[in-house]
Amino acid sequence: MFTIQELEREFNFCYVEFTCRFDRDLKWRTGVEIVPIHCYSSNGFRITQSAMEEAYQAAQKLGMKVKGVFITNPSNPLGTTMTANELDMVVEFAISKNVHIVSDEVYSGTVFDSPTFTSLMSAVADKNLENHSIWRRVHIVSSLSKDLGLPGFRIGMIYSNNEILVATATKMSSFGLISSQTQYLLANILGDRKFTENYVKENGRRLKKRRETIVSWLNGFGIRCLEGNAGLFCWVDMRHLLSFNTFEAEMEIWMKILCDVGLNVSPGSSFHCSEPGWFRVCFANMSEEALLASMRRIKAFVDSVGVGEDCRKIHPGKRSLVCSID
Amino acid sequence: MFTIQELEREFNFCYVEFTCRFDRDLKWRTGVEIVPIHCYSSNGFRITQSAMEEAYQAAQKLGMKVKGVFITNPSNPLGTTMTANELDMVVEFAISKNVHIVSDEVYSGTVFDSPTFTSLMSAVADKNLENHSIWRRVHIVSSLSKDLGLPGFRIGMIYSNNEILVATATKMSSFGLISSQTQYLLANILGDRKFTENYVKENGRRLKKRRETIVSWLNGFGIRCLEGNAGLFCWVDMRHLLSFNTFEAEMEIWMKILCDVGLNVSPGSSFHCSEPGWFRVCFANMSEEALLASMRRIKAFVDSVGVGEDCRKIHPGKRSLVCSID
Repeated sequence: MFTIQELEREFNFCYVEFTCRFDRDLKWRTGVEIVPIHCYSSNGFRITQSAMEEAYQAAQKLGMKVKGVFITNPSNPLGTTMTANELDMVVEFAISKNVHIVSDEVYSGTVFDSPTFTSLMSAVADKNLENHSIWRRVHIVSSLSKDLGLPGFRIGMIYSNNEILVATATKMSSFGLISSQTQYLLANILGDRKFTENYVKENGRRLKKRRETIVSWLNGFGIRCLEGNAGLFCWVDMRHLLSFNTFEAEMEIWMKILCDVGLNVSPGSSFHCSEPGWFRVCFANMSEEALLASMRRIKAFVDSVGVGEDCRKIHPGKRSLVCSID
Repeated sequence: MFTIQELEREFNFCYVEFTCRFDRDLKWRTGVEIVPIHCYSSNGFRITQSAMEEAYQAAQKLGMKVKGVFITNPSNPLGTTMTANELDMVVEFAISKNVHIVSDEVYSGTVFDSPTFTSLMSAVADKNLENHSIWRRVHIVSSLSKDLGLPGFRIGMIYSNNEILVATATKMSSFGLISSQTQYLLANILGDRKFTENYVKENGRRLKKRRETIVSWLNGFGIRCLEGNAGLFCWVDMRHLLSFNTFEAEMEIWMKILCDVGLNVSPGSSFHCSEPGWFRVCFANMSEEALLASMRRIKAFVDSVGVGEDCRKIHPGKRSLVCSID
């Protein structure tokens, strides 16, 4: 006998760096609360000890019992992998607070440049924590939606050393099993080592090339991107295009790009980013022709906004922030 | 914003005639309670007004708030369709108690003989209840697991006139979507009218033939079956094989058939049947050769138990019950 509550109680409160879909996927169904760990452009949006502590204190002030830290590595929307130092900090934080860590590693197969990706599970193993209680409080979630480009196949995974969690998830899975037809196809894909190795290599090569192209175009329009090495998107700095340093101005830009330019680039506010003016630009799911057309349209849009010395004079602070992540 | 609780609260207490898998599918995850409506061999296990009322009173005595009636039509494990009179009674009962009706019609495509199958939704429509509140408290669940023999495809359906339920189920479905590959295949199967019409017809013809064969064999061994016109199984009366008129004796027979004979025929107790000695024998998922071998083994088993005048003398009451459903 089991209940969904068993699984949910265990994780009824999680942190998350950038939430976006997590509001829908985690909060609405389960009723858990998510408190963002705020990261800033000043250090390239890296997680810090103080950012985690601040979020923890904020949750406690709201009378919440913190149950875990939720991270996405490689990051969505940043397009970066977490450093060994960041992973270490998260593990130490979870140990000190006696909480779980859930690491969403759904983009782990999209890493196309150094530094390489390190799974949280490897980071914990490297610290020889097999006999520490944290060993059973570290959980990896993933899927083949991003790495194999199969979002419609609805294949998700949980990897954990926690027997209760694995047993509960196994029972729960009977309510959302993968179609046997899809399982059969997938077993054949994954069983073909030559194909998978080649796929990962070729996928990385193409993602790298595509990212370099888009970053080069955007830089040419005076738009900077956060340096990245993974993911299917760039984290793009359009702060200098804002009429004011507010989220209202960010939404205004988003609406203009959506309605006038015909492109949907997700605004940072939808990821709970605390600095207005950042956007996630997806680049992997379009043809070369569509990319070219998109870039031409963005150029026309930037020209129409008339970004130049005037804009920089109005928002000198923002310009300096742009420089800081170059 | 929505929660699974919205859907579950609405149905947090249901009746069910024979539960079997419903314990797992409905109770364990949601925490709802199920109270069986007990039906008896004396009237061919038909639902009666008094049986529903008894179950309702039993639930109330236990301090439960009754939220709905759950029926399976065609019935599993009986292999029968509900009569117009039975459907009428269920609808009138739900109206009088102001509760929902959930009709599991997963076997509706397996009807191979008269009387025909009538969906609960049609029964309610025939009574011109479109403007009555019951219209929004009638819900049909189904799948293609039985009708198309595709249990591994994990395709389920809800049909309801209740907008809140449909909206909630639509949102909830994002946690258990059907693989796009399977959707594509299925759309092609269901879009082929000639194939589907032929499939349903041929399926019915084969099920009828198979059932007639197995019933004829069993009758030859002195084993009677409830008359049926649907499903992939027979509801088989082995009361005369019991050493005592108890569920322990039923389990003893089940264990013998499982371990010595090598067949798994589900005991009535697993469906919360209140009369020991009934078993569900599935006949659709095996080859002709396997069926033949199974029947030979059952004959050998019946002979070894030595059912005859002696047995009938020991349990005269049970024999009369057997006669009553002939």
